[in-house]
Amino acid sequence: MTTDEKYMNRCLKLANLGAGSASPNPMVGCVIVCNGEIIGEGYHQKHGEAHAEVNAINSVKNPKLLKESTIYVTLEPCAHFGLTPPCSDLIVENQIPKVVIGTIDPFAKVAGKGIEKLKNAGIEVEVGVLGKECREINKRFFTFHEKKRPYIILKWAQTLDGFIDVERTEKEFGEPTWITGQKALHRVHEIRAVEDAIFVGTNTALKDNPSLTVRHCPGKNPVRIVLDNQLRLPERLNLFDGSVKTIVFNSKQNKELENILFVKIDFDKEIIPQILDELYNQNILSAIVEGGKQLLQSFINAKLWDEAHLFIGNKYFYNGINAPQISGKIISSEKMESDKLIIYKNR
Amino acid sequence: MTTDEKYMNRCLKLANLGAGSASPNPMVGCVIVCNGEIIGEGYHQKHGEAHAEVNAINSVKNPKLLKESTIYVTLEPCAHFGLTPPCSDLIVENQIPKVVIGTIDPFAKVAGKGIEKLKNAGIEVEVGVLGKECREINKRFFTFHEKKRPYIILKWAQTLDGFIDVERTEKEFGEPTWITGQKALHRVHEIRAVEDAIFVGTNTALKDNPSLTVRHCPGKNPVRIVLDNQLRLPERLNLFDGSVKTIVFNSKQNKELENILFVKIDFDKEIIPQILDELYNQNILSAIVEGGKQLLQSFINAKLWDEAHLFIGNKYFYNGINAPQISGKIISSEKMESDKLIIYKNR
Repeated sequence: MTTDEKYMNRCLKLANLGAGSASPNPMVGCVIVCNGEIIGEGYHQKHGEAHAEVNAINSVKNPKLLKESTIYVTLEPCAHFGLTPPCSDLIVENQIPKVVIGTIDPFAKVAGKGIEKLKNAGIEVEVGVLGKECREINKRFFTFHEKKRPYIILKWAQTLDGFIDVERTEKEFGEPTWITGQKALHRVHEIRAVEDAIFVGTNTALKDNPSLTVRHCPGKNPVRIVLDNQLRLPERLNLFDGSVKTIVFNSKQNKELENILFVKIDFDKEIIPQILDELYNQNILSAIVEGGKQLLQSFINAKLWDEAHLFIGNKYFYNGINAPQISGKIISSEKMESDKLIIYKNR
Repeated sequence: MTTDEKYMNRCLKLANLGAGSASPNPMVGCVIVCNGEIIGEGYHQKHGEAHAEVNAINSVKNPKLLKESTIYVTLEPCAHFGLTPPCSDLIVENQIPKVVIGTIDPFAKVAGKGIEKLKNAGIEVEVGVLGKECREINKRFFTFHEKKRPYIILKWAQTLDGFIDVERTEKEFGEPTWITGQKALHRVHEIRAVEDAIFVGTNTALKDNPSLTVRHCPGKNPVRIVLDNQLRLPERLNLFDGSVKTIVFNSKQNKELENILFVKIDFDKEIIPQILDELYNQNILSAIVEGGKQLLQSFINAKLWDEAHLFIGNKYFYNGINAPQISGKIISSEKMESDKLIIYKNR
């Protein structure tokens, strides 16, 4: 690891502290180094608040040192006035002579303009240090801006014989059919806490009556999304308890109630692209698709997914609802009590 | 268990000794009881040889006792001259006063006529003792005569994440991808040894180059069946080694070589019914379908199957060829080293 990589690595660690709160902004970490010593650090904590560079510069005890420092930042400093003034201007003002950047910003208002500003001011700029890692940490943000849709994480649990649920009669509706254990449950909630939205199909809403909230770990709740073509889902469902914003994609109406937003789409056309467009417009950077089979398979077939988290529980159902069929690049495979979690990325 | 059931149970045990050699005849067991004592036993050993009743009657040391005996037999005594004379005549000749039958014979030339002959001779006839079990032991024979097709057993092995094979390039062809262990292998060969035929698709023949013979247990080899629409399978494959009769269903030719029979079918129509018709005409009472995915799923979708033997190996492939998707009645679930065998019956 080079010296630059060492500092960028520290930036990545800092950036990660913004997980779950920075969105829809990217997670960004920043380190200021003077004569081989870190004299300032910062990260972007929360949407609307100061950027990583601002926090890092403000943390420097002796600002005079900035003129002989290098500033490391995971993402290109911004060039525009958003909720805060441009970070590239701040770097120029502080006469920091060198900027090392992980990756350029895909956001149209920045995208190279920040680097241009710095270079025009005579600042030495290096781009691409741990570039892959810096992209990866903001995979949601990059996907959102480059593909104009949220980063999609498919998630389901299946038995050792490949079923995601037993066949159930209406009397047996009301809670999920458990396939995996406590550790897997906690993991699912940890994932929920860092993604912007969570999406289920009509049948899952009806059969499992899920809350889709974060309960087994600290963290914010994702926006809940449900498909309900004919608006046949009953109001008593947990999804409609008003505790968290819920978006209902349907064929009947556009309507906004307190914390429930009905969005009309055309069910005669492909629905996934329409839904993703709407989520993009709502600044939702990422969504977990938690089932059922039909919805998951629709995303797979449309090739509109980025990750799949497949939990395999230590159970047999022998019959039931078959699991979705996926093919992708294996990122990791992890034992979790008697369960297993396999993570795929779309190739 | 009644006294009648006790003797019929003994008949079933005897019948079972014909497994693997009686076909295309049914397996039949017979017991002769005089004053609460078994004085004669027999079973049908081999197609073309004596029926169970003949063997049982011949085994009685003192034939005079027959006039005061009851004869128990799993299947209705035959009424026709086949390769041997009618058993119902033999019973009448020997003046056996009472016949207890497990089930009537579905074969058109018998089907009630045997019972009629006995009754016309004044013999007391009882039918249906352990009827279900007597049908079950000849499930192949009953399916064959009632549905005019072989009894179909689907068999495959899948991993814990639901794959039946990895994706392979041509260089990696030549042997099966092993999913299960030694015990499962032995079980597969034991099943082969009692079924009349074994069937694989073109891709499986090409990728796995299977022999489809019985090697890990004693027993006769089943007839091998392969699908080869365009006759593109190379002659070097083990299937064409001439050691066992092989039927090649194709769209090009009807032709008979030594131990290789080419049968032309119409691939523009549904092929499974055409194949089953041909196997029926060839007196094949049962067939194991051993893959691949496409062939197995065709049988499942056509609902033309009777049993499915699903082996689940203790492995993950993460990607590959997805397993067929089945739904049926669970008959048994058995641990086999670190593998599992689940047997389904069609509902």
